[in-house]
Amino acid sequence: VRAHVIGLGLVGSSVALGLRARGAEVTGEDVDPARAERAEELGAIASVGRAPDDGIVVVATPASSVVEVAGRVLAEGTEGLVVTDVAGVKGQIAAELPDSRFVPGHPMAGSEQEGPDGADPDLFVGATWVLTPTRHTSEAAFSTVKDVVSLLGADVVVLPPDRHDELVAVVSHVPHLAAATLMSLAADSPVDREALMRLAAGGFRDMTRIAAGSSAIWPDICRDNAAAIVPALDRLIARLEDVRGIVAGADQGGLVTLLERARVARRNLPARGAPPPQGTELRLVVPDRPGVLAEVTSTAAELGVNIYDIEIAHSSEGPRGVLVLVVASGAAGDLVGRLRSKGYRVAAMAEGTVEAT
Amino acid sequence: VRAHVIGLGLVGSSVALGLRARGAEVTGEDVDPARAERAEELGAIASVGRAPDDGIVVVATPASSVVEVAGRVLAEGTEGLVVTDVAGVKGQIAAELPDSRFVPGHPMAGSEQEGPDGADPDLFVGATWVLTPTRHTSEAAFSTVKDVVSLLGADVVVLPPDRHDELVAVVSHVPHLAAATLMSLAADSPVDREALMRLAAGGFRDMTRIAAGSSAIWPDICRDNAAAIVPALDRLIARLEDVRGIVAGADQGGLVTLLERARVARRNLPARGAPPPQGTELRLVVPDRPGVLAEVTSTAAELGVNIYDIEIAHSSEGPRGVLVLVVASGAAGDLVGRLRSKGYRVAAMAEGTVEAT
Repeated sequence: VRAHVIGLGLVGSSVALGLRARGAEVTGEDVDPARAERAEELGAIASVGRAPDDGIVVVATPASSVVEVAGRVLAEGTEGLVVTDVAGVKGQIAAELPDSRFVPGHPMAGSEQEGPDGADPDLFVGATWVLTPTRHTSEAAFSTVKDVVSLLGADVVVLPPDRHDELVAVVSHVPHLAAATLMSLAADSPVDREALMRLAAGGFRDMTRIAAGSSAIWPDICRDNAAAIVPALDRLIARLEDVRGIVAGADQGGLVTLLERARVARRNLPARGAPPPQGTELRLVVPDRPGVLAEVTSTAAELGVNIYDIEIAHSSEGPRGVLVLVVASGAAGDLVGRLRSKGYRVAAMAEGTVEAT
Repeated sequence: VRAHVIGLGLVGSSVALGLRARGAEVTGEDVDPARAERAEELGAIASVGRAPDDGIVVVATPASSVVEVAGRVLAEGTEGLVVTDVAGVKGQIAAELPDSRFVPGHPMAGSEQEGPDGADPDLFVGATWVLTPTRHTSEAAFSTVKDVVSLLGADVVVLPPDRHDELVAVVSHVPHLAAATLMSLAADSPVDREALMRLAAGGFRDMTRIAAGSSAIWPDICRDNAAAIVPALDRLIARLEDVRGIVAGADQGGLVTLLERARVARRNLPARGAPPPQGTELRLVVPDRPGVLAEVTSTAAELGVNIYDIEIAHSSEGPRGVLVLVVASGAAGDLVGRLRSKGYRVAAMAEGTVEAT
């Protein structure tokens, strides 16, 4: 594989580093020469240069310049060139680049780090990477990009560009805006702000956590995906109006129906990361004393059991938690037995177990 | 201390067990005789019996029967009696029990476990326990209940009953309803449901996690606190309409203002649990390989550093995480040094550090 990466921020540098670590020849460039130089120093690229006229070019610039940069590369390239990008919204970019050699993409992985210093060759291992080929995209170009993405360890999901944008509006963009809105609603409480913050327990913390992240990418996302975000916000608002009606009307049946359906859907949400073929979720009550997390995770490590996911499942109130681990089902029995022998109360549930509604 | 607990579910049994573990004489009862017997077997209560006419009586029945049960106990009790309850909504209960000996309360701790078998004497250690004395409540009664709550290790927050209800509507009830609504919005996607769930990454999981919990308590909460929940839902809806306007109007400045204010507020949210006098938040990039969590938590344990909070701070996209630990500031330097020497990238930030808006 021979690749050229334009835009050496965190994602671009991680793509470059990941491809080099897997044997590819990788060059790169950035509008900021110091950043390109740093990427070279760190080994993310073999050398700084201009895009070649064939091979694969990954455009990892900010979303607002993808059309211009990719358009120029496509105009200058030969038939042997393939171009992909990594922007989080796909409809407009796909529409403006009707070229058989262009395969729009969106790796759903990121990090709080920024720039080439945060680059990680394994950033995309187990991540979902959406490819949104257009009616112009050739099978050969698609297949080349798919191979590169797979080489990086990501799981490819193929969707039409507009459908991608609708889906990320529902599972990423609108939830993010809702988290910020909930946080601001609490923070703007005119009185008793300190008491309010003391009452803000685990459930609230979970719901607003993403609001703590950097806001830098959101203006571009909201501009580029307004066509999908606005109707999704409308649907959210309409449903909250329904919930308001249910609460105001003391419609207990309606409330239970809403909450039970949400509960079943949430519990059937696939686990994060690269799950084992069949995962089992363990739930442990965790007392608040030093060393508990170390004991639990070390017990898993001693048995050679990889923990695919870990989270403290707060109840909607209170500081107590239930520790949730996801491990391979084949290994779950041993770990449960060992933990119980150490005095933990452990419940185990195979993932994908569908609960009755 | 001599206490009697009515209602031996998880909370009642944990109060009983916790008080006995701290030297109190504790009796109890439950409408279900088998449950009372089980609580006695487990040592949560010394014996099953009726409420005495003095001492402290903790009414831990379902919210819907608190007024009846506490009213009967107060009617039958002497001047030496003190009664408190544990229901999650306080206004109506406080209004219907105008008695100098009654101190309404709300321990903000729970667990996914149910019944006396899930009882834990330390369930309330470090938890916020709100007391909402009324204008009828005597200082002596308040002081008795406060001492019992403190004995259990909880932090007392004192609020007027209606104010308590308004605050929990904003930080607990409305967020819970919003989580269920977001989850149902995603689950009801008419097409591509599987793709949607594959695209649902860390941020979405965090936001909807509380929707996975039991829905059993919510009909009572929504009925009892409708007066506070409905206006809080109205405020949330109004703000989401504002956000809709910002996105539809491509108001980038308005969006950045919203997100930045939410970000600062979220980062200044006090840490969960019983924090050290001054906590420091460590943020580590965690590679997805077996044993990492064990290594990090064991490193802390080796140094005798207690981890007050742990969470994987997902970015809004992707399966990669940043592990967030909260430890005592005095111990943070050692732990950071040790982790860096093991090759981790660690950022440390003292909590309460106020970022510029």
